[in-house]
This record gives sequence, structure tokens and C-alpha cells, in this order.
Amino acid sequence: PRHQRLNVLAIGGSERADVTGEVVVIRDLDETKYINISGKIVVTVQDFFGYPETVKYRRSAKLFESLGAIGVLVKSITSFSINSPHTGSGAEGARIPAASLTMEQADMIDRMFQDGEKVVIRMNMKSHSGNLTTSRNLIFQITGGKERPSEVILLTAHLDSWDVGQGAMDDGGGCAAVWSALHSLKQLAKKNTAFKPKRTIRGIFWTAEEQGFFGAKHYYNTHKNDTNETFYFVSETDIGAFKPTSWLSHLAFSGGPQHVNLFHLSKPFHFIGDVGFWAKDGVPSINYLPDKAIDYYFYFHHTDGDYITIFKKGDLEYTAAIFAALGHIIANMDNWGSNHELL
Amino acid sequence: PRHQRLNVLAIGGSERADVTGEVVVIRDLDETKYINISGKIVVTVQDFFGYPETVKYRRSAKLFESLGAIGVLVKSITSFSINSPHTGSGAEGARIPAASLTMEQADMIDRMFQDGEKVVIRMNMKSHSGNLTTSRNLIFQITGGKERPSEVILLTAHLDSWDVGQGAMDDGGGCAAVWSALHSLKQLAKKNTAFKPKRTIRGIFWTAEEQGFFGAKHYYNTHKNDTNETFYFVSETDIGAFKPTSWLSHLAFSGGPQHVNLFHLSKPFHFIGDVGFWAKDGVPSINYLPDKAIDYYFYFHHTDGDYITIFKKGDLEYTAAIFAALGHIIANMDNWGSNHELL
Repeated sequence: PRHQRLNVLAIGGSERADVTGEVVVIRDLDETKYINISGKIVVTVQDFFGYPETVKYRRSAKLFESLGAIGVLVKSITSFSINSPHTGSGAEGARIPAASLTMEQADMIDRMFQDGEKVVIRMNMKSHSGNLTTSRNLIFQITGGKERPSEVILLTAHLDSWDVGQGAMDDGGGCAAVWSALHSLKQLAKKNTAFKPKRTIRGIFWTAEEQGFFGAKHYYNTHKNDTNETFYFVSETDIGAFKPTSWLSHLAFSGGPQHVNLFHLSKPFHFIGDVGFWAKDGVPSINYLPDKAIDYYFYFHHTDGDYITIFKKGDLEYTAAIFAALGHIIANMDNWGSNHELL
Repeated sequence: PRHQRLNVLAIGGSERADVTGEVVVIRDLDETKYINISGKIVVTVQDFFGYPETVKYRRSAKLFESLGAIGVLVKSITSFSINSPHTGSGAEGARIPAASLTMEQADMIDRMFQDGEKVVIRMNMKSHSGNLTTSRNLIFQITGGKERPSEVILLTAHLDSWDVGQGAMDDGGGCAAVWSALHSLKQLAKKNTAFKPKRTIRGIFWTAEEQGFFGAKHYYNTHKNDTNETFYFVSETDIGAFKPTSWLSHLAFSGGPQHVNLFHLSKPFHFIGDVGFWAKDGVPSINYLPDKAIDYYFYFHHTDGDYITIFKKGDLEYTAAIFAALGHIIANMDNWGSNHELL
């Protein structure tokens, strides 16, 4: 037999395990209705129809476990690869090992399986989850002027990353953009007091986003019944702080009809992320979705290739400018649907 | 201090070594005239101006050794990376360790160095070169008809590859195209004897190309004084058996003015490769250069990402068709510059 070393990354939550088993390949989760995976190592070879549609495969370890699988190797959730595995959450609570395989090697195993070859894989996983511990959101703000300091605008990104790469893109770039936006507005206000915002602009770097929005959820729960302040607008940037290169870039908006005047250019795309907690309460929210978020971002997402070099000249500056403009306009407008008082 | 594991591949010929030293970064080989690299580990951070212009950096170990360097880490010869190192020849005969570093990590070290940080690297290389041994070119042919069987057309590719990846692209795809071209012509001749070539069409898979064209060189030297046959035309495909996607794809031609009539669409680009041995003697030769050879090919070249999945539908078929057509036309034409007798 031919031996080959597979290039994998443990999926978040996968624990130490050493199992050997015969492979069964599935292309679609629906196939588990008629393909017996009991006692097998499942290799998924799904097509990539975009991250939101495809990420469920990375989160299928518990499903496969319930059907008797002894291990799971998921084809990485991406459309392009240089034999690069992509990690991410998905195996939390499962007792079978789960790892991401590269596109190339998943497709190779698929070809062998379809040709009727018997493929046996040993998954010797040494990863483990550490104990839960305290981590903290990082919060900084420009307090609003006398008029409406209790109306708060959140500009946010997340500070944690996976074990591979630098986390420069997911989400260091978002943090840099949010930080720069507030820094720029502060400098402007120093030079010209007319720039001092009427409302409070608060920057937040969420903690433990990758583990399930823990930082944002905690902050939301802690403050949702505040009587001292209200959240007027909530924003986030987490899928690439890229300068737009085409009209596909947009601000994904969630809010009521009374808010859409300002966002008449936005598409009705409701991105689920940290701001989702506020969005479901009807607080106007946006996610910045640059056109490169459609595929380019996912070439590097949760890989050892998430390095600062992904960003090109103007990427971080342009993204910061978007959030500075958003913060300034919304902090100073009279009310939703009326911006005649803006500077 | 901060520790980081570097993602490297040994450069061909680099031997076992374990050295630790301070880094000196160079961006251009000319810098060695005024930057002292003695006792240092050199990290090169050259720009990528295309493979032919940039590959000299991967081959600079002996130069750096002569200037006192104790090790060399070369930024990979590519324009795109997912933290992917690229190997290749270049350290043969050097006594200092030499490895390729990823673009991302080379640029990171560059930033640290330019900021005045002291960077120390340990190169613990365990690679070694095996003993020279016999390997063989693989040769197959359709012998020409009665008219000109001693006039030989070579359709070639190389069979060896590096230790990483599958070698599917470099140069398994070329081999597949050459094999398919001869197979197709043979099938055509079976169906219609008019397709039987007048000249001999010979397919060759060269051995040990990556180590320095050993297979082609041996074949050339063995046959250059043959009185039984002459080489009428020599071809090669080695930088991607891709279907053309733009007008940049072409057949790089080398030959005299008496040959250009047939190749009036070719650009005057003289690719150096296995066919170079014949080209310098004036034998008409071509290399197939698909437009994806300009950059896409070099994303995967000599990496762990050189997998069959790089090829898309039509790539191998189209390349095979190019070589089948070339073989057929040149095997049957009256002489160079006259093709009125073609089928």
C-alpha cells in the first residue's frame, strides 16, 4: 500500500485521540441518510458555495459522531489552496477527532474512494482544549458632547485569533481600522471643536469571538438593561479590512425602515456576527463586507497564511476611513433619516 | 525575546547542518558589495520580477558562502503565498545550509531588521543528498513512413519532481500531454493511413531535469553524432499544461529565419530548458508557454501544493492537442516554410 502524510489542522474543540479506520467519503450532509458511516472515518468533499453555506461541514463532528463515525476529516472551507488546511470552530463537545484537510488531499482521497480503493486513515490527534479562563474586551471611546452623550455608537472588531498564522487579517486589520477611526476623529476634534461628536463613539475589541462571540455576548447581556445609555448604532468589521476594488463591496445593514434612508445603498444582507445581539433587538447595525471578502479573504482565513502581508497599500487606511466617516455622521446627525445638520 | 518557528524547505543540495546566527537582510545581490554578511545568516527579501530574473537568489548559497555567510534563507521565488515555501535547485556544492522561506516570514524578518531589532535564527537542517544513481529517460515513438523515418520530431517533458507535492504540474501534466499527443496520433493513423507520419515522432520523458537537465544532456550527447537520424524539430512543455486563457499564451520558438514561416505567431522568447541543447545547434525548437505560466504556475511550483487539482477541465486535453497538431504538421510537411502538402 501507499502511505501519505496528510496536511491537517485540528478543528476547534477536537480532543486528543488516536483512531484508525476505513474512509467513507461524503459530498453532501444529506448523503448520511443512505450511506452508512458507522465505524468509519468520514472525509467530506463538499463543494464551496461560499463560507456561510459551507461552514456547516466544519461543524458536523457531532452529527457524524451520532451516526457512529469514529473520526472526521473536513475538506477545508475555501475555494483556493496551496495544500493549505483551514481550522475554525466546530468540534466542541464531540468525542471523536475532527480535523480540516486540504482541498487537494480531500479531492485525492475522493478520487481513490470513487475508484473503489480501500483507504485507511490513522488520525493521531494531540490537540486539547485548555481550561476556560478570563479574558476581557478592550474598550475605548470619545465621549459625546452635552447634547447626547448617552446615545452610544459602537465601532467594533475582535481581538482573538486561531493558533496558526498571525491573525493579521482575522481580525487584526479590523482592530487597526477601528482604532484608527477613533484616533482620527479625536485628532480632528482637537483641531476643530465642531468635530467633537454629539453622541458617544465607543471602540470595542471583542474577546473570544472565535469560540462563539463570548465577548460580545457578555457585553450585550451586561448592558442590555442599562438605563444610563442606549445603543444608537452598532458596527463591526471582521471579514477583511480591504480597500474596495469593485461595486460588490458594501455595508451589510440590519435595521428598520426608519433607518434605511442613510443606508439606501446597502444591500439587504444580514451578516451574523458580534453585532447580531443588537441587530435582533432592532438596533441599526452594519458589517463591512469588502468585495475581497467573497473569496480572497477565505484563501487565508484560519490558516498559517493569515499574515500582515495580505494587506496592500491603502487597505487599512480605506477601511479606517469608512468607520471614521460612519462614526462621525451617525454621531452628529439629528436623527435617523435626517442628516441636514451634518458637518 | 519572541520565538517563532519558520516554515522552510531545504534548497536542493543543502546538507545537514545546525548553525545559529544573527540575521542580515539583503534585498539585492548587489548589496553584498557594501553590506558585510560575514558570520551572519543571510535572509534575502528580493522582489519577484518573474521566475527567470529572480531564481538567481535561490542559487546564491555559494556566493554568500564565499562572502563568509554561515547560512542562507531565501524568500521563495513566487508572487503569491499562503505561507508556502518553494524549493528547487541552488545549494549544490555549498557547505552552508540553504533553505527557502515563505514570502510572509521573509517580509516579517525584513520589517524587524529594518526596525533595528536583532534577529537570531537557528537553522537545524537535516536534509542530505543521496548518492548518485542510475535513472533513465522513458522513450516511445511512432516511426515515420517510408519517406523520412530518419528525420525525428521530439515531443518531450520531464518525469522527475521535487520531494514535496505530487509533481502533478511540474511536470506530470507535460508528460500527460506528450503521451496523449502520441496516443491520439497513433489512433488517428489506425483509422486513416493518411495520418501515418512521414517523419518519426518520438516522445521522451526526461529524467533528472530538476537536478540540471541530466537526462536531456545525456541523450543529446549520446545522439548528437548519429549518422542514422537527424533531429528535425524538438519541443518541450514544462511550465504548466494549461489551456490558454489569453493571448499571452504562446509557443516560444528558437530557430533560424528559414523556420519562422510556420511559427510566425511565436514571440522571440528563447526559453532555456531541456530543448536548449538542440536549440543552440540551430534545431528548430519550441517551449509551450501558457499565459498561466507567468504567475499562476509559480504559486504552486516546487511546493507541497503541486497537486493534480491545479489542472481544470480542458487543461491537459488542450495541451495534448497542441502537441498532437505540432507533431502532425511538422512530421508531414514538405519542408520548413512550406506546408501545402499537409492533410
